[in-house]
Amino acid sequence: MGPHPAVAAIRLAVRRVLHDVADEHAKLHPLRKPDQPLVLVACSGGADSMALASALAFEAPKLHIRAGGITVDHGLQDGSERRATEVADRLAAMGLKPVEAIRVDVGRTGGPEAAARDARYAALDRAAERLGAHAVLLGHTRDDQAETVLLGLARGSGTRSLSGMAAATGEAGRYRRPFLEIDRQVARKACMVQSLPVWDDPHNVDPAYTRSRVRHEALPVLEKALGKGVVSALARTAQLSRDDADALDAWAETAGRDVRLADGGFDTTRLYALPPAVRRRVLRRAVIEAGAPAGSLFSRHIEEVDRLLTSWRGQKAISLPGRVEAWRADGRLVIRRRDEAAAEN
Amino acid sequence: MGPHPAVAAIRLAVRRVLHDVADEHAKLHPLRKPDQPLVLVACSGGADSMALASALAFEAPKLHIRAGGITVDHGLQDGSERRATEVADRLAAMGLKPVEAIRVDVGRTGGPEAAARDARYAALDRAAERLGAHAVLLGHTRDDQAETVLLGLARGSGTRSLSGMAAATGEAGRYRRPFLEIDRQVARKACMVQSLPVWDDPHNVDPAYTRSRVRHEALPVLEKALGKGVVSALARTAQLSRDDADALDAWAETAGRDVRLADGGFDTTRLYALPPAVRRRVLRRAVIEAGAPAGSLFSRHIEEVDRLLTSWRGQKAISLPGRVEAWRADGRLVIRRRDEAAAEN
Repeated sequence: MGPHPAVAAIRLAVRRVLHDVADEHAKLHPLRKPDQPLVLVACSGGADSMALASALAFEAPKLHIRAGGITVDHGLQDGSERRATEVADRLAAMGLKPVEAIRVDVGRTGGPEAAARDARYAALDRAAERLGAHAVLLGHTRDDQAETVLLGLARGSGTRSLSGMAAATGEAGRYRRPFLEIDRQVARKACMVQSLPVWDDPHNVDPAYTRSRVRHEALPVLEKALGKGVVSALARTAQLSRDDADALDAWAETAGRDVRLADGGFDTTRLYALPPAVRRRVLRRAVIEAGAPAGSLFSRHIEEVDRLLTSWRGQKAISLPGRVEAWRADGRLVIRRRDEAAAEN
Repeated sequence: MGPHPAVAAIRLAVRRVLHDVADEHAKLHPLRKPDQPLVLVACSGGADSMALASALAFEAPKLHIRAGGITVDHGLQDGSERRATEVADRLAAMGLKPVEAIRVDVGRTGGPEAAARDARYAALDRAAERLGAHAVLLGHTRDDQAETVLLGLARGSGTRSLSGMAAATGEAGRYRRPFLEIDRQVARKACMVQSLPVWDDPHNVDPAYTRSRVRHEALPVLEKALGKGVVSALARTAQLSRDDADALDAWAETAGRDVRLADGGFDTTRLYALPPAVRRRVLRRAVIEAGAPAGSLFSRHIEEVDRLLTSWRGQKAISLPGRVEAWRADGRLVIRRRDEAAAEN
C-alpha cells in the first residue's frame, strides 16, 4: 500500500525540485563525482513548512542529496525562542542535518510584515552561504499564491503585480517553492496522517495583518460569490501574468535600444509608434536607468512623461523622483538626472 | 454658481465622448456642412443611465449633436412594460428625441444574465441602424468595471480576461462608455441633485446573480480587507491589462507570420524561441484559424499543443475542439482540421 494521497502529493512536488537540484549540481561538477549537494528547508513549524520538511527528509537521501533545516526566531512573541528550539528538534528528529534555529532582530522598515520578511530572508541568505546550500525550500502553497495575487491586485499596478511568487527566486534561483500548486489543506492533511505536530502562528489569524484579512475574510467571501475555483483561478492568473510581464519586459528592453539615439535621447516618432504597454515600459526603464528609485516611481509619473509623446503641446520639463527630469526637444525625448542636465546646459 | 460637482463630473465625461463623435462625423463629411449626428443613450431608468441621459441632453445641443434615447423592456418582470414607458417619458421630458421603448424576447442561451445582455445589444444594434445613430452611450461606471475585472479574475484565464470593458466597443466603436472613470455614487448624486427619479432594478440586489453577489458581498469585504482603493485599483488593472493584452496580441500576430513555413506548418525551432506568453498566443490563434471554436478552446488544450514544443518525446497527434488536430513532424508543427489532414494523407 502506498502513502496517503496527500503525502504522495507533497513528496512528488519536492522530488521534482530535487531532480533539478541534482541536475544543476552535476553540471557544476562535470569532471568528478560530485559531493552530495545540500538542500535546506525554511521551517516555521506551521503545517506547510512541516509538511515540506517531511517530504524533503524522505526524498533527499534517495537522490543523494543532503537535507538540512533552518527555523527563524523573529523574537516577536513570548516564548518564540523555546518554540524555535522545539521546531529545530522536530526537524532533527526527521533526520535533517544540519538543523539551526536562528534568532533575528526585526527592524521597522516597511511595516511589520515586510520587516519580519526582510530579517528572515537575510538570515536564510547568510545560513545558505555559510552552509554552502544549493537551494532553500519554502513552504508557500497555492493558497498563499492566491493571497499574493489579491494583494497585488489591490495595488492596481498591472500585470507584474499580479504575478505572485515565482517558483524560484533569489540569487541563482536559490529559493524554491515546491508547493505553489499544492493546497494548504493537502499540506495540513499530510502532517496529520504523518502525526507531525504543527504550530499555528497567531499572526496568521490576527486581523491587524493584511494577509490575514485576505485569508480569513476576503477569500472565503470571494469563493462564496464567485465559486470554489477562485483560489486556483488566482494561482493560474499568477502564472499567466508572470509570463505576460516577462514577455513585455523583454520587448521593452529590445525596443528601448532600438528607439535610442546616439546622444542618449529617444526618437519620439518611433517611441510613439510602439504599443502603449511597451512604450510605458520603455519610459519606466529609462527613468529608472537615469537614477529614479523604482520604489518612488508611480504610474502617474510615467503617464505624465508619456503625455510628452501622446499629447504634446509644448509642456515644460517634468520633474521625477531621484532628481530625474524628462523633456522634449527637437523630436527627441530626453530623460536625465538634473545635475547632468545642468552640466550640459 | 456652477453646477454641483457630481453634475459637472458627468457632463465633462459625456462632453469628451461627444467631442470625439463631432470630430469623427466631420471627418466622414469633409466637403459639406455635416448633418447633425445622432447619439443615443441606452437607459434602464437606473441612476447610472439616467445621469448619463441628463448629461447627454445638456451637452449635445451645445455641440450641434442630436440626442435620443432607447430603453429596453426585457419582459422579465411584472410591470416591465409600464416601467419602460415611464423611462421613455422621462427621457422625452429631458428633451431627448427620438425616444423609444423596445420590447425584446430574452432567450436562454448562456444563462439569464448573458441571454438578457444578448437580447438587449441586438435591439440596440437594430435601433442604432434604423435611426442612423453615430454612437450609443452606455452607463457603465467605474464600479461596474471593477466588478467585471473580479468576474474575469474568477475565470483565471489571464490578462485579456482582466481587461474589463473597453471605452468603445462594437462595430466602428458604436458603443461608448463615458462613465468608466465615474463612481456609481457620483452618478447617483447627480440624479439626486437634479431631482431625477431613478429606478432600482431588483435584479441588481438578487443574490442569484453572480454580479449582484460580487457587488454586494465580495467588493465590500475586499475593501474592508485591502482598503478603500480597491475599486480604483481594479479599474486601473482593467486599463493596464487591456493595453498589455493588445500589445501581446499584436506581437503574436507578427510572430505567427514569421514562424510560418510555406506549406502552412510552423518552424518548431523558431516557435520554441518565442517567449511562452507569445508562443501560446500564436498557437491559440493558429488553432482557432484552423477551425476550432474560440469558446470551446481552453488553456489546457493550448498547453498540450505547447508540450509538442517544450516536452517533445514523440507524442502522437492531439485532438482539439472543432475537429482540429495538432502534430509534429520533420521539425514542423502542423495544426489542421481533421478532414483536410485526411485528404492530404
